[in-house]
Amino acid sequence: MSRYFPPLDAAPRHLLFPGVVTRTCWTDRLMLSYVELEANAVVPEHSHPHDQAGMVIEGRAVFIIAGEAKTLGPGDWYLAPGGTPHRVEVLDAPCRVLDVFTPPRETYQ
Amino acid sequence: MSRYFPPLDAAPRHLLFPGVVTRTCWTDRLMLSYVELEANAVVPEHSHPHDQAGMVIEGRAVFIIAGEAKTLGPGDWYLAPGGTPHRVEVLDAPCRVLDVFTPPRETYQ
Repeated sequence: MSRYFPPLDAAPRHLLFPGVVTRTCWTDRLMLSYVELEANAVVPEHSHPHDQAGMVIEGRAVFIIAGEAKTLGPGDWYLAPGGTPHRVEVLDAPCRVLDVFTPPRETYQ
Repeated sequence: MSRYFPPLDAAPRHLLFPGVVTRTCWTDRLMLSYVELEANAVVPEHSHPHDQAGMVIEGRAVFIIAGEAKTLGPGDWYLAPGGTPHRVEVLDAPCRVLDVFTPPRETYQ
């Protein structure tokens, strides 16, 4: 498999929460996480030491980061520095988000 | 301005190469770079110590990473570890790519 162009179809797949599935690829320092979320899915509040950022590709969801809530749609991005609590509530249509982590999340490999 | 939801319209904007414009946001360790490329634009081969990865959002382009070439379209991703030479040649329609760097590119802030 190409080191530079890992096929999405062959990527490790993880069920993160009910209705929330991700596929990932990574370098030593950076991880891409392509997340597909069903309508009304919820990512409960959590935090981790990894810096996280991302952009909504399709659909809309409410992101709550450190208590600040914003509804994001395609082309909107967010930043969640390490240790910042965050939660996501998908609206009533499926949503796709490209999340990014540094360092890579060990449990998403 | 929100630390967690920086508006794309207010993001720093940089002309990287002819027909290649980016807007960025970042944490201490992670940078998102939303790149808009005109049809037939070229990002000449270059490299940098930062790890880079990204996903094509719209359009199609040939990515050449360490001599390996692949045409990527929406939903396709790539990895370019630090120090890896890479080049991009957009096909005959505009292209949008979400690039990611760690650490943040100082000159893109």
